[in-house]
Amino acid sequence: MSNTPKRVYNFNPGPAALPLEVLKQAQEEMVDFRGTGMSVMEISHRSKEFESVIQAAEADLRELLGIPANYKIMFLQGGASLQFAMLPMNLRAAGASADYIVTGTWSKTAFKEAGKLGATRAAANMEADGFKDLPAKLDLDSKAAYLHFTSNETIHGVEFSNEPEPPAGVPLVCDASSDFISHPIDVSKYALIYAGAQKNAGPAGVVIVIAREDMLERTPANLPVMLDYKALAASGSLHNTPPCYAIYITGLVLKWAKQMGGLTEMAKRNKAKSEMVYKTIDGSGGFYRGHAMAAARSMMNIPFRLPAVELEETFAAESKKADLIGLKGHRSVGGMRASLYNALDIKASEALTSFMREFQQKHG
Amino acid sequence: MSNTPKRVYNFNPGPAALPLEVLKQAQEEMVDFRGTGMSVMEISHRSKEFESVIQAAEADLRELLGIPANYKIMFLQGGASLQFAMLPMNLRAAGASADYIVTGTWSKTAFKEAGKLGATRAAANMEADGFKDLPAKLDLDSKAAYLHFTSNETIHGVEFSNEPEPPAGVPLVCDASSDFISHPIDVSKYALIYAGAQKNAGPAGVVIVIAREDMLERTPANLPVMLDYKALAASGSLHNTPPCYAIYITGLVLKWAKQMGGLTEMAKRNKAKSEMVYKTIDGSGGFYRGHAMAAARSMMNIPFRLPAVELEETFAAESKKADLIGLKGHRSVGGMRASLYNALDIKASEALTSFMREFQQKHG
Repeated sequence: MSNTPKRVYNFNPGPAALPLEVLKQAQEEMVDFRGTGMSVMEISHRSKEFESVIQAAEADLRELLGIPANYKIMFLQGGASLQFAMLPMNLRAAGASADYIVTGTWSKTAFKEAGKLGATRAAANMEADGFKDLPAKLDLDSKAAYLHFTSNETIHGVEFSNEPEPPAGVPLVCDASSDFISHPIDVSKYALIYAGAQKNAGPAGVVIVIAREDMLERTPANLPVMLDYKALAASGSLHNTPPCYAIYITGLVLKWAKQMGGLTEMAKRNKAKSEMVYKTIDGSGGFYRGHAMAAARSMMNIPFRLPAVELEETFAAESKKADLIGLKGHRSVGGMRASLYNALDIKASEALTSFMREFQQKHG
Repeated sequence: MSNTPKRVYNFNPGPAALPLEVLKQAQEEMVDFRGTGMSVMEISHRSKEFESVIQAAEADLRELLGIPANYKIMFLQGGASLQFAMLPMNLRAAGASADYIVTGTWSKTAFKEAGKLGATRAAANMEADGFKDLPAKLDLDSKAAYLHFTSNETIHGVEFSNEPEPPAGVPLVCDASSDFISHPIDVSKYALIYAGAQKNAGPAGVVIVIAREDMLERTPANLPVMLDYKALAASGSLHNTPPCYAIYITGLVLKWAKQMGGLTEMAKRNKAKSEMVYKTIDGSGGFYRGHAMAAARSMMNIPFRLPAVELEETFAAESKKADLIGLKGHRSVGGMRASLYNALDIKASEALTSFMREFQQKHG
């Protein structure tokens, strides 16, 4: 095995970069996990070895995010996309309506999926403005089953810097997939948070659900057990075989984030990395144009355009040649997108902004 | 990294043993997957690199099982347990009834989950006899939406050696989780097959669904997309981010099975391994007693009892000390269970039967 494997600057929007330390530990433990003589993939999900894996992941997440004791943590499958359905199945009683703040592709999709299953209202919908900004005001239903928002829109690069305030008694629910554990939050403001791991927290194949215990009492009778928050939480994510390896890697990432200084340090890094890129965009005299309005700018995903589609294609091709990977934007926004999740350090932003300046000099 | 990692004889029922060659390749490719400078966990699920991973897995599975062109293959999440709900949601029209052959814990659970969502009938139910045998005859509904069976019961060690015959026009559906790709089958007899990967085919976190195209036409409108076979098949398992790493490992296992000689060779190995254990049971003069009746015996999972619970506890402890792992039986059957999936070779059966003989000499 080579001692100096090739590594690139990985700006993928998700699945995304993982800390090299995590990958090296996984590599080291692949064939013989901590003296068991088996891979993590080969041990029973009911063994004491796997119990210690999932319990450590939960404890580290609880510590990192400051999750109060009256919240349950679940490691589930199907991604945030399955949560789009499970959430209303569990939290919205028959006949009740749920409020959604629509700020980009993902909240729009969550809104649509919930609408298949019952009554749904848009408390705001920013689509007519091209999903460039956060809503200035919300049209809130004081009787809503919950108020849902997407804290960061991966495709449109729009991020809430503060949680929206629901009416008294309306639970706040968040799809935090793409800025999960990227900065500290006050979990007690939320009734339920869900997040696909494959941005900041781990590999694809596991979605984390953090639910206040009273939310679990809403689950109706006779839901299929794999869609039933109450049953899944009661089983400690072990009703059936969980995605063991994805949970193991997520656990290693959570431990790494703690060792790096926790979410305060993550936020500091993420602010520095994203400010460097936004500064380059703003200082380019209009050559680079960010998609999102300044006040709504994401620290995680920075979609930006160039003066012409041909130039964007050249940028995509040349950056890839320079081992800056994953910068082609989503087709719905066009142009480029830099995703700067936790695992990237400031060197990635330095490499990207240096490339951007050189590219502008050459093609501007 | 040690060059001689510890390895044990792994009789776990699932998650279970994987071929050492597969683990070594995964280890080698962990930090830099085939020159990308990224782990498989860090590449985009829409990249050409991941496309080649999932397409190779599908092609190899098609070749191994001889899957006709009019069947779609899906790599999904949530395990066989989520399929227990997705299957009736998609294949059983409102008002229609589905038939289930109940031969053990897993078919009983599938039957129960389907019953939450609509009309369900037991075409046979072997529970009163302790799930020791296959049904001698079936009480079939000629108008059933489908006939469901579980080809191998992981807990009770009861395996069909031939498919049950549904009435003309009734689609045959199989939960093949624990004997998937363990021997050749005639896929054209089936309308739909599903299997959690974590027995013979890969790690936990991916479930494979093989569906005849006409079955996809049954999906009703307005199902949540993550529960919608038609949409998931149309997307090539890429509606959302799939469990990329679990699919990658499954692909390596499928390639390994092909290189070993395919399913004819797998069946030969599995027959030899299981016969060696059954012979030891039958030759023990009643010291070891198999759970399943001879004609229903599984090649995959062999639950057996000893003369006393105390002896079973001693067997569990001593076998573990001898690096024979995972032999403690499921609490619902008690005693011991040896799972002999594809990745185990004859040496595992030799080690086990030799241990069994010595144990009997010492304690018999």
